[in-house]
Amino acid sequence: MSDSPRDRHAHFLVPRKPLIEHSAHGMRIHPHDLEQFCIEALTKVGVSECDARTTAEVLVTTDTWGIFTHGTKNLRGYIRRIRGGGLGARATPKVVKEGPAWAMVDGDSALGMVTSVLAMRTAIEKARRAGLAYVGVRNSCHFGAAGFYASLAIAENMIGIAMCNDRPTVTVPGSRSAVLGSNPLAFAVPAGSERPLLLDMATSTVAGGKVFAATARGEKIPGHWLVDANGLPTTDPSLFPASATLTPMAGHKGYGLALLIETLSGVLTGAAIAQHVLSWSFDDASLKTGHGAAFIAMDINSIMPVEQFKSRVDQTIREIREAPKAKGADRIYLPGEMEWERREKALAEGIDLPEDVASRLRSLADELGLKLS
Amino acid sequence: MSDSPRDRHAHFLVPRKPLIEHSAHGMRIHPHDLEQFCIEALTKVGVSECDARTTAEVLVTTDTWGIFTHGTKNLRGYIRRIRGGGLGARATPKVVKEGPAWAMVDGDSALGMVTSVLAMRTAIEKARRAGLAYVGVRNSCHFGAAGFYASLAIAENMIGIAMCNDRPTVTVPGSRSAVLGSNPLAFAVPAGSERPLLLDMATSTVAGGKVFAATARGEKIPGHWLVDANGLPTTDPSLFPASATLTPMAGHKGYGLALLIETLSGVLTGAAIAQHVLSWSFDDASLKTGHGAAFIAMDINSIMPVEQFKSRVDQTIREIREAPKAKGADRIYLPGEMEWERREKALAEGIDLPEDVASRLRSLADELGLKLS
Repeated sequence: MSDSPRDRHAHFLVPRKPLIEHSAHGMRIHPHDLEQFCIEALTKVGVSECDARTTAEVLVTTDTWGIFTHGTKNLRGYIRRIRGGGLGARATPKVVKEGPAWAMVDGDSALGMVTSVLAMRTAIEKARRAGLAYVGVRNSCHFGAAGFYASLAIAENMIGIAMCNDRPTVTVPGSRSAVLGSNPLAFAVPAGSERPLLLDMATSTVAGGKVFAATARGEKIPGHWLVDANGLPTTDPSLFPASATLTPMAGHKGYGLALLIETLSGVLTGAAIAQHVLSWSFDDASLKTGHGAAFIAMDINSIMPVEQFKSRVDQTIREIREAPKAKGADRIYLPGEMEWERREKALAEGIDLPEDVASRLRSLADELGLKLS
Repeated sequence: MSDSPRDRHAHFLVPRKPLIEHSAHGMRIHPHDLEQFCIEALTKVGVSECDARTTAEVLVTTDTWGIFTHGTKNLRGYIRRIRGGGLGARATPKVVKEGPAWAMVDGDSALGMVTSVLAMRTAIEKARRAGLAYVGVRNSCHFGAAGFYASLAIAENMIGIAMCNDRPTVTVPGSRSAVLGSNPLAFAVPAGSERPLLLDMATSTVAGGKVFAATARGEKIPGHWLVDANGLPTTDPSLFPASATLTPMAGHKGYGLALLIETLSGVLTGAAIAQHVLSWSFDDASLKTGHGAAFIAMDINSIMPVEQFKSRVDQTIREIREAPKAKGADRIYLPGEMEWERREKALAEGIDLPEDVASRLRSLADELGLKLS
């Protein structure tokens, strides 16, 4: 295996410990086996072994964190798009322009995971010399969980930041329709003896999935999650998505942050912007979605001795954790703490995939004639 | 005047048009006259003419935007701190370490405005060669409005980002006390024929001032603005600040974002972190507050022809503005649009300083034996 940024998988390699169990409500599977399945599925539709491994690693790591909305659940959709031609199985993302502390990657409509790993690895390589680097991406597609790319910085003793644009699903103050994507922002910060900080957040108040869940439970929702067809607050989740739209988190603040992300991911990269981005899951599978993204790496050791930095992060984490607790709360979580705990459990005991993920994977296995169960 | 980054004031120089009017409720004053007053007051307590001009420019520009909480209202407090020794009238912030795309500035406990302008100008100079640059700051103090420093990038055809840490006033999920500062984030993006994008936001749900205003009006507040002494939501604004604490915007998202800002402003810079930062207004005026800050500049022209970028920003702005309106809304504002409109009015007609700002300035004038009215 070459030593190019695109080929480095060591950080997330998973020790083999086969385990697949099915239940009525889902599936328990060892991450390694889930990765193997993803690789088989992707290579079956023409993706190279290397790109299939990269994609599998992104999606399965996301599942180990318990972020099932952005993991292997979407593999079937990506593969549908490869078969439709909107994603190129053998497309080759590459750096098309660069400077001392930045680069621009044209994704060539390859899988968003492949393009994004190349981009973040490029940011890391450039940051090693320049101290920090920005890498923009155009002609990409849905890239899964932004947090994965940010987290690649951790093992390099760097701070990682990742973001992307998306087709509009979120309104802005004064409007009644979707204006910007849920444009996520993620960051990762290495620590010493504590777990790394890791946050991956959409800039909408809540994800659409939370609204659907409230509808399913027959519950009302808080008045600041949605606006109705008139652009007015509603507590009725069942209006979504046909006649209600997600709100930006914290009103004008989330709107502004989403617009900064749009600027760095879409405007500055030459990608499609806002309403010009297509849906990776709903729009015709033969079309290129045009997503943009942005990745930043900061090399700690260039700026401060890394052990000093880590000790300062550890102290900050402990001071936050030891703050006086709210009534009924026995613990204060640091960003990423839940995800790292879930991952540790998943590596030891297997991932408990929820029913919706398991059923999509089973359908995909059937479609491709692969064995999962 | 030298050509060093610290001395460049051209961007915000205000044409002279004298105007001071007093009313029972405030004061209308031309920005130029307000700047002159600030310069006189600062030089009177030993600040150099150059640093006084820089500080005046930051504070008065902030007032022209209508952000009166962060403008000349605070001049009296800064001067009290200079007199107490916690801020050095003749302190000299300087770059103490640097690389191709980054630098670290030691503020030497000078006025936060002086240190921050030096830092942002340094980021801009470095970004011109490297494409982008990060400049961290330690041993600083309250720097006023983060948006001012971000906005310095606009005239350089760059994207500007500014942030800082502060003494804790905001809780985190699971706690009942203040854990992190309201750590603001600001960005500015140049446009073509449209006004530049400009956002300056605290990472708390609302500023303390909004809670005080609700108390004054005898109104209840939404349940997600504050937690009470038990860490539980309250709608009673009168509990603040003695037995209630501000919440982070959007819960764990604002908490995470504040922690990223703390990392870049406090941890990586060697500044005081979170609870170790002192209050610039409440703590003993002889003490150094230890604030940290971070500034990022991105040179557009390194990455994309600047006219192409600006035309893409303009198009994005227009598409957002023309989105379908909510019932009762006749306009969608872009981030910064209100502030630029207020500034245009202030430059033409003078700034309408509210009573609380006017009375502090009058007190300061009395204390220093200066003429304001």
